[in-house]
Order: sequence, then C-alpha cells, then structure tokens
Amino acid sequence: MSRQPASQAEVAAFIATEFPQTPCVVRHVAPGEATVVHPVGQAELRPGGTVSGPVLMGVADVALYVAILGTIGIQPMAVTTQLSINFLRKPAGDRAIVGACRLIKVGRTLAVGEVSLYSEGLDEPVAHAVGTYALPGPTSAA
Amino acid sequence: MSRQPASQAEVAAFIATEFPQTPCVVRHVAPGEATVVHPVGQAELRPGGTVSGPVLMGVADVALYVAILGTIGIQPMAVTTQLSINFLRKPAGDRAIVGACRLIKVGRTLAVGEVSLYSEGLDEPVAHAVGTYALPGPTSAA
Amino acid sequence: MSRQPASQAEVAAFIATEFPQTPCVVRHVAPGEATVVHPVGQAELRPGGTVSGPVLMGVADVALYVAILGTIGIQPMAVTTQLSINFLRKPAGDRAIVGACRLIKVGRTLAVGEVSLYSEGLDEPVAHAVGTYALPGPTSAA
Amino acid sequence: MSRQPASQAEVAAFIATEFPQTPCVVRHVAPGEATVVHPVGQAELRPGGTVSGPVLMGVADVALYVAILGTIGIQPMAVTTQLSINFLRKPAGDRAIVGACRLIKVGRTLAVGEVSLYSEGLDEPVAHAVGTYALPGPTSAA
Repeated sequence: MSRQPASQAEVAAFIATEFPQTPCVVRHVAPGEATVVHPVGQAELRPGGTVSGPVLMGVADVALYVAILGTIGIQPMAVTTQLSINFLRKPAGDRAIVGACRLIKVGRTLAVGEVSLYSEGLDEPVAHAVGTYALPGPTSAA
Repeated sequence: MSRQPASQAEVAAFIATEFPQTPCVVRHVAPGEATVVHPVGQAELRPGGTVSGPVLMGVADVALYVAILGTIGIQPMAVTTQLSINFLRKPAGDRAIVGACRLIKVGRTLAVGEVSLYSEGLDEPVAHAVGTYALPGPTSAA
Repeated sequence: MSRQPASQAEVAAFIATEFPQTPCVVRHVAPGEATVVHPVGQAELRPGGTVSGPVLMGVADVALYVAILGTIGIQPMAVTTQLSINFLRKPAGDRAIVGACRLIKVGRTLAVGEVSLYSEGLDEPVAHAVGTYALPGPTSAA
Repeated sequence: MSRQPASQAEVAAFIATEFPQTPCVVRHVAPGEATVVHPVGQAELRPGGTVSGPVLMGVADVALYVAILGTIGIQPMAVTTQLSINFLRKPAGDRAIVGACRLIKVGRTLAVGEVSLYSEGLDEPVAHAVGTYALPGPTSAA
C-alpha cells in the first residue's frame, strides 16, 4: 500500500465518512501533525458547565487519526490500539475543544502520537493524550 | 465527608443527573466493583459495523465512577484524572457494550480501577482500561 | 514461526540469557499467565526503606515477557512497545516483589497483559501495570 | 510548605541522596523542565546491544522528579503515582540515554509531565513517557 500524504480536503472528506458521528472539523493537517476542533454545545456538557471526559478522548482519537492520514494517506484499516489521557484542567463550557497532534513515530506497523487539548483561545492545556494506531501492513494491499 | 457505600438506586439516579448524555445503565454495583451496560445502536457504530473507540472509553469512565460511588458514596466532586485503554478486539455491532470495573485502590485522595469491556454475551474482552479518579478530600465537607 | 508454549525451565533459561542483569526468578508459567519474584536487598531500596519505582517497572516487564514466552514459545524478537503502571501503595522494604501476570490478548502481532505487583506475603497490590509486546510476525522465520 | 524552585546544584545533591543507585546526572533544570543523562555501559545492555526498557523507565522517572524539584523545590515526599511509556526505536548500545522532561501541569496535589528519551546525539526519540507525581499538600509541613 503506497504511503503518500493526504491533503486536508481528502482527510476531511474521509473523516466525515469514517466517523459520521463526530462533529470534529479538520483545521490543519500536514505530515506529522494535525489540528482538529470540536464545537461545544449542550450535548457535550456535564453539570457545572464543563466538557465531559469522553468528548476529550474522542477529540484526541480523531486528531491522531487525522495526523496519520495526513502523513501516510487514507488508510481505512488503521485502528487505535491504545490511548492514554491525562485530564489537567477543567475545560471551559463555552469554548470549542482544540486537539493539536504531533506524531512521534510512524513505523511500518505502528504510529504513535501525542495530542494537547485546549479550550479554544486559552493557553493552558485541559488534557494531554498519547495514542497508538496499528497500521495496515505494506503487504495488505496485495 | 463521610464515606458510605451508595446503593444501586442511588448511584443510578446520580449518574442520570451527572452524565445526562450517557445511555449507560447501572446493572450492578457493590463496594469495590460495578457493571454498566451501554446499548449499541446506529449512533455508536462506525463503518464496518463496529463500536467506536470513544464509546468504549466513555463506558470505562462511567464504570469506574459507578464503582467509586458504590464504594464511598455519592461524590459529585470526584473527577477522572487519567485513563488508559487498550483496544483488543473488534466489538460486535449488534450487541451492547458491558463494562465490568474492579477497583484496585481507594485511597484518601485517589481511586484506581480496571475495567474489562465486552460485547454482551461474548467471552473475550474488546478492550481493557485502567483509570484514576481524584477524590474530594476529607476536609472538603467542612 | 511456530507458536508452542515453552516450559518453565525453558523460559527461565532464556530469561537468564536475555535479561542477564535481572535478578528475577520465574516462579510459575503457563499459557496466558506467569509469576516472577524479584528479591529485595540494599540495591533496590530508596530512603525510607521502600522499593524504587524502576524496580517495580522492571518486574512488570519481565512478568509480561515470561507469560508471553510461556504462551507462544521462546521469541527473542518480542519487544515491549508500551507499559503503563500505577503505583498504589508503598512496598515493604524487607519483602521480595512478586509480579503476577495475566495476558488479556495474544494476537498475531501484539500481546497485551496486566500485572499485579505485591510485596511477598501481603494481600494488597503495591502496583498494577498493563503492557504491550510486539510479536515477530509469522513470516519472520522465513 | 513553601514552593520555591531549587537550583541545579540543590537538585543534583538531593537526587544523589534520594536515588543513590541511579547513575543519572542532572544536566539541566529550570522551572517546568529538566534534562538528565544516564551513562550506558555493560550493566544497561541486553543481548543485541540495546538498552533495556527498565533503564529507560528509570530515566523518565528521574527526569520528571528533577523537573518537579526544579519547579517547586526539594520535596522528599513527592512520589510517582503513574507512568506510561511508549518504546519507539531501538536505543544505541554505545550512547548515553538523555531524558528531556517538560511539565504540563503543576497543581496543588498532582504534577504531570512528559519525557522524550534519546540516545545522546541522535535526533529521533527512542521512547516517550508521561508520568504523574503526587505532591505533598500545603498543609503537610504543619
């Protein structure tokens, strides 16, 4: 399977198909990195006006996937194998969540990246995640 | 703040308020353990008919919280600080997700537990998570 | 590469070669599980008479490896790709560390297991780890 | 307990006492960051001439601790509660391991940081870790 970076438009179209439930928007993608944005509305809030943990985990997962697609091209068979997240600060209830991913390894069978999650416009991260995707092998396109 | 186990009815009522978006149902809760069930419908599926990762992460988070409430009582201030999940097998698209949590530590300020996630009725786990909750301190009830 | 469980004697001999610096002893090994023991002496202690974190991480890593070898046979090419550990309680300074591993997945390319770590003879775990090994592919024995 | 950054000399002296077995040298420390170096010799190698995983985990743990001490001052009671590490590439057997830590949160009771680990002089990280330390509370100096 050839590995050619996908453009932002290609990635955005693919994510819309693959994660039809996600409201995440692809803001930036380039080899080795990506930024996605998740609007925050009533559905994402918990009492106290903060964004729920699973929403943050979902943003981290999508940011990783987008960065991988932007690096090796559209890979419908790439799947998350591991995700670890630290929740650092209470997200604002009235700001979108921004997930900025940087890949730290893209190997033959595994890609690993880290994601910093922010309430849009604020400096300090609300969470930090590290995740691994298993990549389809070079022979799987046989 | 007194620490008395909460009953299944008390926990279920609290979860319905605190996580209003979660469709998780509390099936079992006792000191140190809990089982929750998340129905699977179109909204939880990805192409290929499998349950999305963020749904599994959400079930793990709720299972941990339910086990903690069932052990130390209703604590609206308990928050997840860390969650790590391994995705092991593709979940079935036509079965509910069951999350079975066992707490491995309930300390003064932190509780740690592990959660095995299953497609209901199948033996092999689809994912395994370990998470930490920060607990409100004994003095916070002042 | 054939996958046949290795015996305790085979695993112990291999570990002595592969991890020559580890003082870990293989106490039990069977398909899907293993127990190893790490003696505790002056070299493992930190001020306050407790066992250092890196020692616990090392025991978890060896326990995982032993369980994998006991399940799929001697695999010199298996390598740890990820390890996550929670430190739960202060280990006793005068007791060996026991690591009990249970594999939760042994796939074609990845194996995942959890390890409970104890001060020998005490009931409550001092730490809990989850780790992943990358396994050499079936074609790598070519 | 007052929280004043400690100098490199203060941190180095403390680490030598607290982790007497570690050969790690403190190369750099400043509020929010630290770099430590672990020489590599025969004792750190596994067959194949690579550095063992537990050595890398130990370097990550020390780098985190040094960064915390450099930020909030000498805290003998700070303890690791969680560490998660991804092994990315085979370390060189003839180069020291460098651990560069950046703290991403220093709260009242928890500090979280990430550590990139390198074979000295090479650009691509051999491992990446994220860890949490529990900090002694402000009242514990009573």
